Amino acid sequence: MAMTGILRPGHAQIRVLDLEESVKWYTDVLGLVPMGRDSQGRAYFKARQERDHNSIILRQADRAGMDFFGYKVLDQAALDGLEKKIRDYGIQTERIPAGDLMETGERVRFKVPTGHTTELYVDKKPAGNAVGTENPNVDVIDGPGIGPVRLDHCLIYGKDIDGNHDFYTKVLGFHLVERVKMEDGTTDLAIWLSCSAKAHDIAMVRHSEDDKLHHVAFQVTSWEQVLRSADILSNNRASIDVGPTRHGITNGTTVYFFDPSGNRLETFSGGYDHYPDMEPTTWTWDEVGAGIFYHPRKLNEAFLTVVT
Amino acid sequence: MAMTGILRPGHAQIRVLDLEESVKWYTDVLGLVPMGRDSQGRAYFKARQERDHNSIILRQADRAGMDFFGYKVLDQAALDGLEKKIRDYGIQTERIPAGDLMETGERVRFKVPTGHTTELYVDKKPAGNAVGTENPNVDVIDGPGIGPVRLDHCLIYGKDIDGNHDFYTKVLGFHLVERVKMEDGTTDLAIWLSCSAKAHDIAMVRHSEDDKLHHVAFQVTSWEQVLRSADILSNNRASIDVGPTRHGITNGTTVYFFDPSGNRLETFSGGYDHYPDMEPTTWTWDEVGAGIFYHPRKLNEAFLTVVT
Amino acid sequence: MAMTGILRPGHAQIRVLDLEESVKWYTDVLGLVPMGRDSQGRAYFKARQERDHNSIILRQADRAGMDFFGYKVLDQAALDGLEKKIRDYGIQTERIPAGDLMETGERVRFKVPTGHTTELYVDKKPAGNAVGTENPNVDVIDGPGIGPVRLDHCLIYGKDIDGNHDFYTKVLGFHLVERVKMEDGTTDLAIWLSCSAKAHDIAMVRHSEDDKLHHVAFQVTSWEQVLRSADILSNNRASIDVGPTRHGITNGTTVYFFDPSGNRLETFSGGYDHYPDMEPTTWTWDEVGAGIFYHPRKLNEAFLTVVT
Amino acid sequence: MAMTGILRPGHAQIRVLDLEESVKWYTDVLGLVPMGRDSQGRAYFKARQERDHNSIILRQADRAGMDFFGYKVLDQAALDGLEKKIRDYGIQTERIPAGDLMETGERVRFKVPTGHTTELYVDKKPAGNAVGTENPNVDVIDGPGIGPVRLDHCLIYGKDIDGNHDFYTKVLGFHLVERVKMEDGTTDLAIWLSCSAKAHDIAMVRHSEDDKLHHVAFQVTSWEQVLRSADILSNNRASIDVGPTRHGITNGTTVYFFDPSGNRLETFSGGYDHYPDMEPTTWTWDEVGAGIFYHPRKLNEAFLTVVT
Repeated sequence: MAMTGILRPGHAQIRVLDLEESVKWYTDVLGLVPMGRDSQGRAYFKARQERDHNSIILRQADRAGMDFFGYKVLDQAALDGLEKKIRDYGIQTERIPAGDLMETGERVRFKVPTGHTTELYVDKKPAGNAVGTENPNVDVIDGPGIGPVRLDHCLIYGKDIDGNHDFYTKVLGFHLVERVKMEDGTTDLAIWLSCSAKAHDIAMVRHSEDDKLHHVAFQVTSWEQVLRSADILSNNRASIDVGPTRHGITNGTTVYFFDPSGNRLETFSGGYDHYPDMEPTTWTWDEVGAGIFYHPRKLNEAFLTVVT
Repeated sequence: MAMTGILRPGHAQIRVLDLEESVKWYTDVLGLVPMGRDSQGRAYFKARQERDHNSIILRQADRAGMDFFGYKVLDQAALDGLEKKIRDYGIQTERIPAGDLMETGERVRFKVPTGHTTELYVDKKPAGNAVGTENPNVDVIDGPGIGPVRLDHCLIYGKDIDGNHDFYTKVLGFHLVERVKMEDGTTDLAIWLSCSAKAHDIAMVRHSEDDKLHHVAFQVTSWEQVLRSADILSNNRASIDVGPTRHGITNGTTVYFFDPSGNRLETFSGGYDHYPDMEPTTWTWDEVGAGIFYHPRKLNEAFLTVVT
Repeated sequence: MAMTGILRPGHAQIRVLDLEESVKWYTDVLGLVPMGRDSQGRAYFKARQERDHNSIILRQADRAGMDFFGYKVLDQAALDGLEKKIRDYGIQTERIPAGDLMETGERVRFKVPTGHTTELYVDKKPAGNAVGTENPNVDVIDGPGIGPVRLDHCLIYGKDIDGNHDFYTKVLGFHLVERVKMEDGTTDLAIWLSCSAKAHDIAMVRHSEDDKLHHVAFQVTSWEQVLRSADILSNNRASIDVGPTRHGITNGTTVYFFDPSGNRLETFSGGYDHYPDMEPTTWTWDEVGAGIFYHPRKLNEAFLTVVT
Repeated sequence: MAMTGILRPGHAQIRVLDLEESVKWYTDVLGLVPMGRDSQGRAYFKARQERDHNSIILRQADRAGMDFFGYKVLDQAALDGLEKKIRDYGIQTERIPAGDLMETGERVRFKVPTGHTTELYVDKKPAGNAVGTENPNVDVIDGPGIGPVRLDHCLIYGKDIDGNHDFYTKVLGFHLVERVKMEDGTTDLAIWLSCSAKAHDIAMVRHSEDDKLHHVAFQVTSWEQVLRSADILSNNRASIDVGPTRHGITNGTTVYFFDPSGNRLETFSGGYDHYPDMEPTTWTWDEVGAGIFYHPRKLNEAFLTVVT
């Protein structure tokens, strides 16, 4: 975790156009565990090896996208300290009362410079993984559905990437893992940030419009599970954007695809460990294609332009 | 093997535009074992687990493509029997004397209905695999280069696919494994044929021009080795056509790429067993995309049009 | 297939001590597809990618072991030819009428020199694989149960290994792939034989008692599926004999385990291709351990002594 | 990292009986990168994806074992704070001057309650990974040698496990991930601790003698790389203790083996993420076998008794 006490990405609320269709798809194709609905009609899910009650919340809306992304924090002292740092930095915060999200405690909510609503929270009810914590069996991942092990990270698009970079590193305590430079050789086109030793807990790309989602990513356990993801997606006639392939950036292996509302999702495996003492990796403008998709060494049009 | 005594694809002679550049690339990037040159200047290679002296022959020419594709036959009696059957079928044969190809015995040469020069032979000097045949070590596949284990099959393009189908099954004893139908629902666009229990020993696609090569394929041992192939290709800035992905047809996992002369090659893994008593699989015109590339469920332009 | 027309191992009848318990175990743990029972109370199964009606038949008995092992033959002419060759060789044959085994045609039955009842047959009703033969989906292997793709081979124990070797190669048309020598450097302790290009369709070990079964083997598609096999076996508290590990012989990756009656089974992946023109591999007495289990380079006691 | 600023295991000094033989073995078989020797004759190595100058130091001695194990710390302030906490806890510390270890800054050294010499340090000269930090190629892991990506953790044996547990969690800021209980159901036989989100950065087992080493572990990138490790070890006639297999504890896949001096090493892959907010997993005495080696569900004698 970061020395600020931020542990990990904990939840993402995603907008879908048809809730019932989406609940079925996130259950049967993506293979998340349905965890119930709240009084607002939102549907809750967790990944199979996650231990907290929920990580993905689906909300019916008239356009796709992500409402907010939340990080779990170690304890109340860390949360209070973070809230103070955020306010001292000049960003307003709001407290959302416990219970607004199912089985979730009070959240501190704020907008990062790119306009994305972001949250910190301490409590989410333990709901148990698939195998328990006494003499557990090995969790053999069987279907139906992909069955990723956890929510891992998201990639967001917006204008003020430098502002986000500054805020995420100085206030939230993330560290820079990789970056892509623009043609000028100076400006960051995109950055990958970590609050742990993972290659990324969040990433962001410079874009003309704020508060946009590129994708939400889930971890699977191997390159063979990435293949199984793609097979299951095609068996179910889901739209695959790119992959299976490897990222140059992070070295993860990946497949990108769209949910029924057009939100891009990713299941990926691997990626190197990166600690705060390590020099970030830099990709120059002419090699951004290889950075994103290492095998074709070029981007596809949809990857660059389709966001929700 | 086929009951005619045809064992397996044994060699392919490939035309390259710059022999020295190609020898380096087939050695360092593809990872074949260089086996020497002959008095005509042709360069010989074998894959690491192959036991015969050579399987790939490179010949410098002013255009890329494949000169001929040869099958190894069990014994002289089988070869004589096959030659008689070929002539009885109405196709002329020619005997190429032993030694014309390095360490290779006499070959029976003929043209199949699509105009591809095809050969049968019995003798090729044993050259040993990487580990020997007494208390062998396990062959750990290390680089530089991909290091496929064997030449596996080729895919050829030409006009008279029905003629090839008839000849290959009735005379050579291959059996049909899969087929793709054209829009009329009747005509075969493409067929996959086996002389063994492999999913294919040769495949062919209907095309306006005869004697064309789509690709020569090499086997690797796992999906992770397909990934390693793609990583090595990108590390060496080779041009990757498609993949890593899975074929619907045969279920193999694959990456397609081009040698420096523009010849398309494939390294693949897997594919189901198919025996002569099994019903072939049929793909309809509207699903040909999924048949070829199972994840995107559509073909790319280069795959359809670029042949050598 | 062999030039005699023998295609592949097609069925094995296994004796179990408690049929109901075994049916449940072969379904839920091994993950075979239950295909019904016959009037004698025998239970039939197929592996998920097999296309014929059955490959494993369980018969309740008071001791474990294998009643018979059968090969599928290309057509009636090949079967008649084989029967004549067997009789000419001096081995009696018997015709078991169609229907004695469910959905299975007439079988030619005989005893090989080690006393194992062996069968040849042409007809078994097609029952379809999991995905069909028109525009099939990819068969994603999900549980419960291991879900091997096919019956692959068996390893038998008996006295007259030389007699079996002679009969299998001269009469049935198999070829020798690997052998282990005894301390004298001459006598075969064990041999691996193929009627295809697989590394083995049957194997046999010299032993003081005839008609014994060491194991029946099923193919899975990858080393990761071998791991999944072992995880599922342990999750179900099945007794694992050895593995996951690699064989030096054939290079396959493997796990051995016992069914509830004590019959040893194997799920394995890989193994090199071997054609009749290739020199067999020989293991000397001092390296037999590495030949069988490549990583420990020694045998465990149970592997050597426990047969059914 | 821990909130105390401890980043990760950074180095281990291992005693070997024959330095030249060991340098050759750690280079050619384990596949570490040799980084030079110091004036005391110690030999330095790093793993291929590590960025600091060294992680393994070999010292010739008349008995095998581990001299010390060191953790890298974020910055000088964190190091000073940790030193004060250690002293306040009642454990003496010593400062080893910069340069005592090659390219390594000042180290704070102390003994944990089980008598193991442990170190903290901030500075180790960056030496670069195999691919650099600008537009890097993918690091394709080729031999000779296993080529693990990083030093990952060690398992130590000693008397006062409870003392270590208290010290490691209260002073160093590690958190408990898994534990094995003794027959009394209360006492910890063994504990697994993390200073990150990895399943373990160190583990320890209750034992009658202090300051003992069970194994030092290196990470590889996949289950297939665990197989490759085992193949390479057997090809080189290294002594394999156990595996490939899976741990119940941490879920990692693993192979254990001995260096030429009898020090046990491990290459492993996988293992779940564990954060400080998660409940530890507990294994009861009767299931310790499954906890350690999930497939056989029992321990081998050597694993329990052989330490250095």
